[in-house]
Amino acid sequence: MLSETQEERKMAEGEEVKNKQVLFRNYIDGFPKESDMYISTENTIRLKLPQGSNGVLVKNLVLSCDPFMRLLMQKNDDSGLFGCYTPDSPITGYGVAKILDSGNPKFQKGDLVWGMTGFEEYSIITETESLYKIEHTDVPLSYYTGILGMPGITACAGFYEVSTPKKGETVFVSAASGAVGQLVGQLAKLMGCYVVGSAGSKEKVDLLKNKFGFDDAFNYKEEHDLTAALKRYFPEGIDIYFENVGGKMLDAAILNMRIHGRIAVCGLISQYNLAEPEGVKNLMPLIYKRITMKGFSAFDYLAHYSKFYDILLPLIREGKIVYIEDVAEGLEKTPAALVGLFSGRNIGKQVVVVSRE
Amino acid sequence: MLSETQEERKMAEGEEVKNKQVLFRNYIDGFPKESDMYISTENTIRLKLPQGSNGVLVKNLVLSCDPFMRLLMQKNDDSGLFGCYTPDSPITGYGVAKILDSGNPKFQKGDLVWGMTGFEEYSIITETESLYKIEHTDVPLSYYTGILGMPGITACAGFYEVSTPKKGETVFVSAASGAVGQLVGQLAKLMGCYVVGSAGSKEKVDLLKNKFGFDDAFNYKEEHDLTAALKRYFPEGIDIYFENVGGKMLDAAILNMRIHGRIAVCGLISQYNLAEPEGVKNLMPLIYKRITMKGFSAFDYLAHYSKFYDILLPLIREGKIVYIEDVAEGLEKTPAALVGLFSGRNIGKQVVVVSRE
Repeated sequence: MLSETQEERKMAEGEEVKNKQVLFRNYIDGFPKESDMYISTENTIRLKLPQGSNGVLVKNLVLSCDPFMRLLMQKNDDSGLFGCYTPDSPITGYGVAKILDSGNPKFQKGDLVWGMTGFEEYSIITETESLYKIEHTDVPLSYYTGILGMPGITACAGFYEVSTPKKGETVFVSAASGAVGQLVGQLAKLMGCYVVGSAGSKEKVDLLKNKFGFDDAFNYKEEHDLTAALKRYFPEGIDIYFENVGGKMLDAAILNMRIHGRIAVCGLISQYNLAEPEGVKNLMPLIYKRITMKGFSAFDYLAHYSKFYDILLPLIREGKIVYIEDVAEGLEKTPAALVGLFSGRNIGKQVVVVSRE
Repeated sequence: MLSETQEERKMAEGEEVKNKQVLFRNYIDGFPKESDMYISTENTIRLKLPQGSNGVLVKNLVLSCDPFMRLLMQKNDDSGLFGCYTPDSPITGYGVAKILDSGNPKFQKGDLVWGMTGFEEYSIITETESLYKIEHTDVPLSYYTGILGMPGITACAGFYEVSTPKKGETVFVSAASGAVGQLVGQLAKLMGCYVVGSAGSKEKVDLLKNKFGFDDAFNYKEEHDLTAALKRYFPEGIDIYFENVGGKMLDAAILNMRIHGRIAVCGLISQYNLAEPEGVKNLMPLIYKRITMKGFSAFDYLAHYSKFYDILLPLIREGKIVYIEDVAEGLEKTPAALVGLFSGRNIGKQVVVVSRE
């Protein structure tokens, strides 16, 4: 890792520098392992954009480990949203980065941005439409991979727009201490909803109740009958289920939904590593309870993200919402951090700090 | 069956008459059989309301066999919409009837009505909120069990309100020659959509293409790979799936949906007779294609049914839509007619004519 002064000199001279990378090994089935990625220090990069490029050259500062990245580790032939990784190329995902050189008038040298980047020290980004300039730097930069990045937009869009919540309604959030869930729960509380979350450890359940202010929370691993568990927490039923996990939890939640209930389908993390997904059987209540189940993606809301910032920034500044991150230090920690998402090892939003500028 | 004159005399005298009934035998699992119902001629009824009743006494004219009735033949403990039948009591369902005596100022003797009634010659209906006066008698009375009754409201609500269709969109309708499907397909064609239907016989497929004007149609029983079949008919994908069957067809349809597609979940007839429903596995595309899957019921739209009449009545009168009925003559044909829905024996909307007034 170069100092800023060394970097400046290399940039001025257009010299090549070492570029540590997290490379993808090969397409997988089942749970990802650390060995599905490998660290390479062999790549070098000139700290100057090639002549005529209209992309940007960035230095990556914070990278984001998100569950959707698992889906890019398998061959996808039919997908409206995801591509897939290329073996022996760097994995990609969301991150916060600093512009070192720009061929695009939207970005200037020194700008901080968030968006899709490579998991490496330096990246050349040509698809600059999915790069957003960071205007507010009085909050932690890492927040732009979380509460002010894709997960935050996901939480806001999924809660306010997809779930159409009303004060007094009952809300269930699964994977509730995760990057999206912790925020959904707090937004729902601020709206005056009754909120219960599920998570996979006592520590996370405590966090939900004591740190994020959920009305209640439970450890799904300790419940042999999820339908009965939900009935216990929602004797009158669930108005909104913010769905992050899928499978048995979805089957149990549908049975506990109220009439005209809404299921915002944000993620199905319990299914990502299965060769064949579990079948969801309880679809009849969709009809007799007139339930709406709506899949959504932050993708459709990214262009309008500033309206969510108008909600989130004051709440963050006034301390009315908190955001917990699980910080791994160093690019080489990426494989363990990413794999940990699927065993639930992370507490809160998983980030990797590559450089502190 | 009494003549109208005989009936008038019996009514005047408040005398008891025989009342043939279709009685429910006992709760069932699996496919319904004719023997799950039995005909009784032992009941008698006075052709006058009891003193102080605020219900109505009706003579049933046309009765409607609908798939949801199967759900009333099993013990339901958790249901937002359906109750269940009582052994050795008449089955109930939608029908067209004539008021013989009324204790309710909304209805007068001689009025024709449609709504929930008993499967018997004469019924006393106390829950008159689900009874609607028939104002237009220039169309066949039986239509008020179909295109102008619950199935028609289901089709209009499900198509116009739940599916939010646009001209030029692609629409797939399953069970497309049934009471609801045939109408959905025609409404979609009138809106300028491309419409394909599935049904379970060559005769029905011909009807879809030649009588109802679907752009194309296929026999699902002849397709060993429903996903491939749908891909053939919708190479660019499906915008709207009007879901009447569930199970494997739903799994195949989800894989063929376009981005921002809508699935209006009207019925899941393939699942009603299974001890355990088939699991639907392909839920991931709900997220990456941002699909909305919305269960609905005519129940929520009955109060505003007249707005659908404003659409349907002119179309019927001008011959711009057709409606095919499968007419069984005589109350005693009910068990066979109702059971036939689940083997697909009926061609079009199944009705039972009890009396031609």
